[in-house]
Amino acid sequence: MSTQTLTSSAPLAPAAQDLSSLPPHELVPVMARAGRAAQAHLARMTTADKSAALLAAADALRAAQAEILAANALDVAAGEARGLSGAMLDRLRLDDKRLAGIADAVAQVATLPDPVGEVIDATSRPNGMALSRVRVPIGLIGIIYESRPNVTADAAALCLGSGNAALLRGGSEAVHSNRAIHAAMVRGLTSCGVPAEAIQLIPTQDRDAVGAMLTAAGLIDMIVPRGGKSLVARVQADARVPVLAHLDGICHTYVHASADPVMARDIALNAKMRRTGICGAMETLLLDAAFPASQQVVAALLDKGCELRGDARAVALDPRIQPATDADWDTEYLEAILSVAVVDGLEPALAHIAHHSSHHTDAIVTADPAVAEEFLTRVDSAIVMVNASTQFADGGEFGLGAEIGIATGRLHARGPVALEGLTTYKWQVRGTGQTRP
Amino acid sequence: MSTQTLTSSAPLAPAAQDLSSLPPHELVPVMARAGRAAQAHLARMTTADKSAALLAAADALRAAQAEILAANALDVAAGEARGLSGAMLDRLRLDDKRLAGIADAVAQVATLPDPVGEVIDATSRPNGMALSRVRVPIGLIGIIYESRPNVTADAAALCLGSGNAALLRGGSEAVHSNRAIHAAMVRGLTSCGVPAEAIQLIPTQDRDAVGAMLTAAGLIDMIVPRGGKSLVARVQADARVPVLAHLDGICHTYVHASADPVMARDIALNAKMRRTGICGAMETLLLDAAFPASQQVVAALLDKGCELRGDARAVALDPRIQPATDADWDTEYLEAILSVAVVDGLEPALAHIAHHSSHHTDAIVTADPAVAEEFLTRVDSAIVMVNASTQFADGGEFGLGAEIGIATGRLHARGPVALEGLTTYKWQVRGTGQTRP
Repeated sequence: MSTQTLTSSAPLAPAAQDLSSLPPHELVPVMARAGRAAQAHLARMTTADKSAALLAAADALRAAQAEILAANALDVAAGEARGLSGAMLDRLRLDDKRLAGIADAVAQVATLPDPVGEVIDATSRPNGMALSRVRVPIGLIGIIYESRPNVTADAAALCLGSGNAALLRGGSEAVHSNRAIHAAMVRGLTSCGVPAEAIQLIPTQDRDAVGAMLTAAGLIDMIVPRGGKSLVARVQADARVPVLAHLDGICHTYVHASADPVMARDIALNAKMRRTGICGAMETLLLDAAFPASQQVVAALLDKGCELRGDARAVALDPRIQPATDADWDTEYLEAILSVAVVDGLEPALAHIAHHSSHHTDAIVTADPAVAEEFLTRVDSAIVMVNASTQFADGGEFGLGAEIGIATGRLHARGPVALEGLTTYKWQVRGTGQTRP
Repeated sequence: MSTQTLTSSAPLAPAAQDLSSLPPHELVPVMARAGRAAQAHLARMTTADKSAALLAAADALRAAQAEILAANALDVAAGEARGLSGAMLDRLRLDDKRLAGIADAVAQVATLPDPVGEVIDATSRPNGMALSRVRVPIGLIGIIYESRPNVTADAAALCLGSGNAALLRGGSEAVHSNRAIHAAMVRGLTSCGVPAEAIQLIPTQDRDAVGAMLTAAGLIDMIVPRGGKSLVARVQADARVPVLAHLDGICHTYVHASADPVMARDIALNAKMRRTGICGAMETLLLDAAFPASQQVVAALLDKGCELRGDARAVALDPRIQPATDADWDTEYLEAILSVAVVDGLEPALAHIAHHSSHHTDAIVTADPAVAEEFLTRVDSAIVMVNASTQFADGGEFGLGAEIGIATGRLHARGPVALEGLTTYKWQVRGTGQTRP
């Protein structure tokens, strides 16, 4: 494939020092247009060329270790001076091992199957026209994220691997880290002939830049927010560009009457307590009134240090369970707290889930295959599980190799989204002179 | 599948006379919630049951012929009194034959393959979990349309066939026709056990109802505008709900140097002149400077009564060609006017299309297979064609059986959208007790 048009053309964007003098409402369109122009190049890269570029970017990250860790130290020092919480500082902090993990993740994307060019389906018409739907990149993806500098590399790699350009807007806490990671990746990518504008980092921390991205309909094709609920809520409220995201992960596990007691206990413990802060963590446990081992399940959770808040019948199971308020059923705790309700069979369980789920991931534990299939069919969530922990809700665990995020919207892509979710399709029609009667 | 929950429950919505007394910002949420509740029923209907319901709706439309034509006569009389244009009145007017066509189209949807339940892909993980992605309905689809009463039946049938509920908002010109068509369809559907709220028609012509639909995020899952450019532009500008639509169909045909002269002439004539008012009509013809028969192609178009507006080199082809202005290259004429440019090969043609296309449908006429593939790969439009008329851009012509519309957005669905585009998917995970390490 020819790259001549692009490599022989004038620079696609003003130099970075020029850009940062522009106000955000001018800056974002300029960068977006440059990204779109670069994306036309990415769309035509072969899988082998994209893989080589990703491996070069990973190598460049490894080679820039000293520079990136020095930049990160500036961010961590500034964060400490500003009194960031320990959890925030932990998200921000890089070390040799974390940076190696970031580089490895970029290299890993190079090994994933390339969705671009895949023929989704092909038919021919009675008049002889051949039709096919072929996967193509979406275009320019905007990523708006907070304090985790690894998102700079992860998101850029997934966009590039799927032929998309990326416009990155990281949080101010990680500004030096993000710049160093971005600069290293661009060095690697451009060494393989990828235009520098394929992966751009917004050079200003002016918050108006976020607003300018959210309203850049026609210039940015999709926004992916990566961060806490307030960021996602703002993006969803203000965006005029399609958003791929989930706001809440209010995940349920329903223990059916037929459930194996040991399996139910183990799944409940894992779904809640393995990591309480992830979006796939269970937040509500529904125990069937006819399940004989509910006391053992709640005792195991309580013994592990989980606070339980229950409805009247759940409270009766164990004196350590506190009464739940109405708000508990709609709360994503993201910590060692769990709401527990006792339900009279499948239909009330389905009704509770329909009413309170955030449609992220909901699970049933049951030994009855017909009940399992009914649950799988009728629960209207991005991920529906039988006899497994909701903590599996993750692109890596699903075999996607990585994920740009988990989507709970109903259009385009649901659940863990990786390379395929970063593509769309076009119709290709091959005729031999057909005209329409 | 059990329908007991729904059929034994209280009515899902207040009666129509109660509804129409509500202000639009209360009315739309009430109807949307009722539609969502009904959709839970539709999602569980078998293909056979949906087909039977659609056939009953078609029969009910046929049985209500006198009532529908009488209602239509009221609309036509009102339109004449208001001085509607002949074209508007023609869109509005029904007769025996048109109504039979509407009923037949509803019955036709019953024969289409049902996408719901289709397994898109299935894998299993090393830990034994089985994963599959299964097609499910989107939910509640809002349809906002103008004076064509057939949209009431077409859109309702496509939504129902794909397991979606529909919330219809027709134009005031067709208010009586829409009510009569809607009432007949609901009679047919409810005779098969479908909840009446599956297909609802907004009972007020208050324009605030449109605004309330466009901002009903979380209640309406997708909006499909059907009508003129001003309607679509308003919907796209104001919607907080995803919109499936195309604003413009600025379609190009590029005649490559190698094109067969007769094929080029026939395709150009058909693409422009078969029907000038449809979105797939060609609006710009790009003639390669090395194509030897450009004069014959433009002469054929001029002889057929097409007005041509050309760049300097096109004007030189025939004295009847007028000079084009800059605006011509970005104009969707929808009449017998065509802009014509002479280009120096594939790259300038691709550049012109990238700059001016509305990304609806673009075509090349060429005898060179390598050039054809390059064009198919590099033109970034919903539909890209080789050696065929752009007027084929239509769900029926693509073998989809029908279409809810043609989408030029990049996410979810592109080009002609029919039943499959009205679905999304969920992940089903079948485990045997797996917990995440």
